[in-house]
Amino acid sequence: MSAPRRDLKWWGWGDPAIEPELDAEAVAMLSERVGELTASPRACELEGFELPDPQALPAAVTDAVEPGGVFTSTEDRVRHATGRGYPDLTRLRSGRLPAAPDAVLLPADAGEVRRVLAACAAEGVAVVPFGGGTSVVGGIEPLRGSHERLISLDLARLQDVEVDRRSLTARLGAGLRGPEAESALSSHGMTLGHFPQSFEYATIGGFAATRSAGQASSGYGRFDELVDAVRVIAPAGDLRTIDTPHTAAGPSLRELVVGSEGVFGVIPEVTVRVRPAPEVRRYEGWIAESFEAGAEIVRALAQGPGLPAVIRVSDEEETQVSLGLSGLRGIAGKLFGGYLGLRRRRKGCLIVVGFEGDEESVARGRALAVRELRRGGAAYLGRKAGRSWERARFEGPYLRDTLMGMGALVETLETSHTWSRLGGVKEAVGSAIRESLAAQGTPGIVLCHLSHAYADGASLYFTFIAAARHGEEIAQWDAVKRSASEAIVASGATITHHHAVGRDHAPYMEAEVGQAGLDVLQAVKERLDPTAIMNPGKLLPSRNAATLRN
Amino acid sequence: MSAPRRDLKWWGWGDPAIEPELDAEAVAMLSERVGELTASPRACELEGFELPDPQALPAAVTDAVEPGGVFTSTEDRVRHATGRGYPDLTRLRSGRLPAAPDAVLLPADAGEVRRVLAACAAEGVAVVPFGGGTSVVGGIEPLRGSHERLISLDLARLQDVEVDRRSLTARLGAGLRGPEAESALSSHGMTLGHFPQSFEYATIGGFAATRSAGQASSGYGRFDELVDAVRVIAPAGDLRTIDTPHTAAGPSLRELVVGSEGVFGVIPEVTVRVRPAPEVRRYEGWIAESFEAGAEIVRALAQGPGLPAVIRVSDEEETQVSLGLSGLRGIAGKLFGGYLGLRRRRKGCLIVVGFEGDEESVARGRALAVRELRRGGAAYLGRKAGRSWERARFEGPYLRDTLMGMGALVETLETSHTWSRLGGVKEAVGSAIRESLAAQGTPGIVLCHLSHAYADGASLYFTFIAAARHGEEIAQWDAVKRSASEAIVASGATITHHHAVGRDHAPYMEAEVGQAGLDVLQAVKERLDPTAIMNPGKLLPSRNAATLRN
Repeated sequence: MSAPRRDLKWWGWGDPAIEPELDAEAVAMLSERVGELTASPRACELEGFELPDPQALPAAVTDAVEPGGVFTSTEDRVRHATGRGYPDLTRLRSGRLPAAPDAVLLPADAGEVRRVLAACAAEGVAVVPFGGGTSVVGGIEPLRGSHERLISLDLARLQDVEVDRRSLTARLGAGLRGPEAESALSSHGMTLGHFPQSFEYATIGGFAATRSAGQASSGYGRFDELVDAVRVIAPAGDLRTIDTPHTAAGPSLRELVVGSEGVFGVIPEVTVRVRPAPEVRRYEGWIAESFEAGAEIVRALAQGPGLPAVIRVSDEEETQVSLGLSGLRGIAGKLFGGYLGLRRRRKGCLIVVGFEGDEESVARGRALAVRELRRGGAAYLGRKAGRSWERARFEGPYLRDTLMGMGALVETLETSHTWSRLGGVKEAVGSAIRESLAAQGTPGIVLCHLSHAYADGASLYFTFIAAARHGEEIAQWDAVKRSASEAIVASGATITHHHAVGRDHAPYMEAEVGQAGLDVLQAVKERLDPTAIMNPGKLLPSRNAATLRN
Repeated sequence: MSAPRRDLKWWGWGDPAIEPELDAEAVAMLSERVGELTASPRACELEGFELPDPQALPAAVTDAVEPGGVFTSTEDRVRHATGRGYPDLTRLRSGRLPAAPDAVLLPADAGEVRRVLAACAAEGVAVVPFGGGTSVVGGIEPLRGSHERLISLDLARLQDVEVDRRSLTARLGAGLRGPEAESALSSHGMTLGHFPQSFEYATIGGFAATRSAGQASSGYGRFDELVDAVRVIAPAGDLRTIDTPHTAAGPSLRELVVGSEGVFGVIPEVTVRVRPAPEVRRYEGWIAESFEAGAEIVRALAQGPGLPAVIRVSDEEETQVSLGLSGLRGIAGKLFGGYLGLRRRRKGCLIVVGFEGDEESVARGRALAVRELRRGGAAYLGRKAGRSWERARFEGPYLRDTLMGMGALVETLETSHTWSRLGGVKEAVGSAIRESLAAQGTPGIVLCHLSHAYADGASLYFTFIAAARHGEEIAQWDAVKRSASEAIVASGATITHHHAVGRDHAPYMEAEVGQAGLDVLQAVKERLDPTAIMNPGKLLPSRNAATLRN
């Protein structure tokens, strides 16, 4: 790999060859709910993209990577200037960005990472570690903090793979994308089992830096649970955690590095737990009488015999829209229409359940799950429904591009709370989003599902769609995001279950961890990154962070 | 509760009414292996106990608790001056201690804790948080750091209990002992499932502060896995973590507080996950052909269908001694003799397996475990063997007092590593202990078991017994401990799987977490405890820590 990856759409999500379209029925159904949409196609091509001119970098910085490892083209700068949240996509589609890295550096190995950080610390150059560039919370926003220059440090070349079959662990380079890691593990008969919606482009380092959770995390564990040991290369030195299965030697430094979002240093590699690749994967659809009934089924499983690899419950609105918007979230409306019609349950809530493992464990797990599903009043939809979800599991972001092109605001956000408080959180956050959209004259739809469950609680994932206010998209988004975030905080829920903090949630970190918590994180940062070059303006609230209104 | 607890032996372990004796056969068997023991009964009564005179405390400190909350009697000072490691017991039995707290303070609630810390920070008085006083690593050693005065802050009155049945969580006061917490939860039909050997006297706050693991942690989870949320009252302010099931909002501050051993502040309460109390508890014994064969069975379960609530494999030496020393570890030699005789396996390795849950889950779990046990060549010993272990599960520390009275050095230590490295660690650490004992002219026995297993590895727990070198017990212990610790570190294993760091392991923390790790922990400490009053000399290596040779 001699250049940064350029295989995603520079202006949107994923493979440029994939641009799904909605059929007329779906468009009509959407318009009925959010009003007429006015198309807002992309404004520009990459050639004419407006970016601030790059600052020249000190030779010590550019010399820290081998010749040919520094990139300053508009394309590379644009590709490293944003994540893939709604404000990012809006600005990319507008053809200009208020900020971008001065250069992209592509270190060959951990040694070069170390040299780059040393040079940047000495020269006062800010560094944004770059994995897959898929953050939806502004995690790689090119904020300079108190520095004048900024580089994007693209970790794509860190691709080591070393498997310990006996211990079921693997040391994986930070730059491996999800499919690359799975492919390498697959040759050993193993899987990591980590499949977030960003799976195709997100990287191992990013998973660790953001406490990622995948669609199958109920079965395989969240990424933070899969991390055995981790290393961070910080300006002040390397921090490496021990690779034993458990230690009582003080506070967990592993858990301090996991989730650190590049503000302490760069994670060059992670040692993770792996499992034998499943022999059987069985996905199926069920329909619950209500969201509450579906959630109770999940609670019973989480607090009892255990959860399937995947279990998710859509609320009525999400189920309806999934049925209506053929292709949206990959669930074929006609199929469900038929199933539901038979059962006279057009108002039910979709449950997707996925079992993975060997024949026996899948049969065992399914028997336990089916018992709870039936006990909770759910009706079986069949395997086609499950396969349909499975096939489309990574399609959401492609559809978002399509909807944005049609003139829609589309965004997602998520949280979690204990079972006792979950209903209240769903109500409060859903209302806040609806009210904020309505107050702006763009009433929208709010979809919600429960997708990560634990014995003590679960996550809630909200998708909202409304007509975009052209030219004011970011202000519109900002108002809704703020209302939702305030409702989350007021409910005592977490500001993020798996999207991480980045730029967007940093203002809510004080509510999350308190002043003492911020002080502690700041103290760690000061020790590891004394000149504050690492990923300024992320995770920790900062007066230097530029606002999104730029 | 108007006074500190005084119900343990002041000089040894547990209930003063329990002083087990070894029968003649057991004594003979022991002598045969470690040489003739010369009895070393306790030197003194509490009345004549020699302690340094207490320093007077500033009124601001003593006034921080309600009247009657300050204790300075010899008994209370002795009871708060040591944990229950071998060096602690040796010094207690000698009738003098080189150091003790100047007073014991018994705060009524978290507000008083906060006031005490504020006063101590202002006046420069060191504070040792006190839970059950059961540390075996010098975790409550009265080291003053740079301060002249020191108090023990006994948290026994922090006894809150609040159960959320729907979310299966409970908020528990730090001062609750294991049985108190279980009793409170039992009235809600719940259990915490945390049963370390210190269960009878150790406290909730101590479990959290030391990353405790219990005998049933394979089934219920280690204590750190049971903690949903935690609070720490630090001199610089309160740090409180969010009580949602999961968050991706940055590094885990919960995991920074768990394991902090009182060096950041005082943990006044913990919110933990609880479970329905088991309907069925089934414990049974098996015999494996070798330790390696037994470990492979555990690995197969940990990496496959899952572990029983309890599973432990003794090595040949531990099995033999358990068989010979009737009562030692509660395993009746005659019973096993009979069973083993039948199977001509006097050289096998004992496996104890315990299943807990409802009828169905126990039956299911047992079927899976039995299959692996049989596949691994283990033979069934029966339920009596399991019940015998279960009945005696908390007896080890009582027997240690008996053995010490007979003139033996008895100590335990533990570590963990990945499955790939476990055999090497067992060999290296066992040899180091044996060689160090032999080199001192006191050849001893080294017993080992595997008792906490994970998909990626397991813990090893070593017990060693030798003739004590009278008058030089601590130097003798120190040499062995040092050899074992160096072997652990050289193997890349952790210095402690569940005993924590305290005073004894602090010198090995640099090997464990590196200089950057120490720097980070120190930075957190400085932010939360700027005058370094909290539990000096523990966890972090310190030049102010007194040596044990005093």
